[in-house]
Amino acid sequence: MEMTARMLEMTPGIRMRSDRALLACIDACFECAQVCTLCANACLQERMVAMLRQCIRLNLDCADVCDATGRVLSRVGPHGTRMARTMVEACAIACEECARECEQHADVHEHCRLCAEACRRCERACRALLAS
Amino acid sequence: MEMTARMLEMTPGIRMRSDRALLACIDACFECAQVCTLCANACLQERMVAMLRQCIRLNLDCADVCDATGRVLSRVGPHGTRMARTMVEACAIACEECARECEQHADVHEHCRLCAEACRRCERACRALLAS
Amino acid sequence: MEMTARMLEMTPGIRMRSDRALLACIDACFECAQVCTLCANACLQERMVAMLRQCIRLNLDCADVCDATGRVLSRVGPHGTRMARTMVEACAIACEECARECEQHADVHEHCRLCAEACRRCERACRALLAS
Amino acid sequence: MEMTARMLEMTPGIRMRSDRALLACIDACFECAQVCTLCANACLQERMVAMLRQCIRLNLDCADVCDATGRVLSRVGPHGTRMARTMVEACAIACEECARECEQHADVHEHCRLCAEACRRCERACRALLAS
Repeated sequence: MEMTARMLEMTPGIRMRSDRALLACIDACFECAQVCTLCANACLQERMVAMLRQCIRLNLDCADVCDATGRVLSRVGPHGTRMARTMVEACAIACEECARECEQHADVHEHCRLCAEACRRCERACRALLAS
Repeated sequence: MEMTARMLEMTPGIRMRSDRALLACIDACFECAQVCTLCANACLQERMVAMLRQCIRLNLDCADVCDATGRVLSRVGPHGTRMARTMVEACAIACEECARECEQHADVHEHCRLCAEACRRCERACRALLAS
Repeated sequence: MEMTARMLEMTPGIRMRSDRALLACIDACFECAQVCTLCANACLQERMVAMLRQCIRLNLDCADVCDATGRVLSRVGPHGTRMARTMVEACAIACEECARECEQHADVHEHCRLCAEACRRCERACRALLAS
Repeated sequence: MEMTARMLEMTPGIRMRSDRALLACIDACFECAQVCTLCANACLQERMVAMLRQCIRLNLDCADVCDATGRVLSRVGPHGTRMARTMVEACAIACEECARECEQHADVHEHCRLCAEACRRCERACRALLAS
């Protein structure tokens, strides 16, 4: 959201105000955490919940990892680059694993299709940040 | 975001698909959690950090309460109304307390001005949900 | 844990160092959050997962509310009493709702029995803090 | 805590019931998250808060990463090994960075000394799990 950019712009000592990749990744992380939380709940309500066990677990994992990564990146600065980098790697993998599982249910469950899309967006945002 | 509406619409057994107040509150909670996390960090970087202690604490509290409220509301259904209701009350108070503190620094710190606005939006969304 | 007491004792400006009810509540909140996370996962792995939907949802809610309450209470001080109080009320209700559901499965699922016990401990710790 | 062992023992399909390294790591993660949250708050209350900025930031980062790692490990099973592994690596680095900073203030601030110890315990538990 535009808010992230405006808040980071006003943070003293942060020189990454023009860092599009960072901003995009923070927003993608928080969006993905929210969508995965909703997808876990939707899966839990499905009649065939027994088939969706792994999907629910990966949704919950992905929500937790994305949320922590979004928080860590919101505080990123001159310090902590090594840890933040490894968190972004973990986040890219969490999104990839969750997307792959959700994609298998995308034809049947529309919420899985939307969730897979959010995970792929976040995965791309993480990889773009790692490459920058 | 539109995503919240689309995800809840597809959740089996949820009859509140047309509940604008719920959707608006979920999004306001997650937005406010994110903005408060960024404001806590910006305050921490300010030269006059010693004057902003209470602001940082209320930012951290508000971020945690908004995040938990957003997650609980994402799972809301026929159950748990009493707990969800009390969480929304706690969230409205957390937002009000944080906004009141941030408003005192709004002239000096632009991030506090923006944060106070996000807190007031979330407070209103919580009160609208409680009234509905 | 003893750590909570030692950490709070060393926090400047906190006069509640002898507040047994606060310390007990912080620890009970974090313990309950952890046990509920484990119970949600154990329920998800059960063959009869479809019967445990509500239990899983209440586990996830209770984990989120307990975690946020534990964090808020860790920062409690001269400020914020009204919000902290409402959070502790929400936490007591979350624990009560989760315990009541888990108790229904306690004969069949040992993890639900243990989880109900942790929820009841946390509920009592919350009510003791509210009464103090 | 003993609870973690008992809960995981009762989780269907988990064969790691005898996995001491996993159990120790889950508990160390949740303990470290709690201690880092308390240390961030204690640092914020110190008269010399301006000297403790980086310490507070690393405390908050470490608390978020430890909490997410503890949750992910609580759900670990036949799936997701690659992501869980990278999270444990990120957690070991977060603990190491936070411990190193806290150790610089350990002579002056007893809460930093205790926090550094909790971080080093968690770092060791993470590395022991990665080695197993």
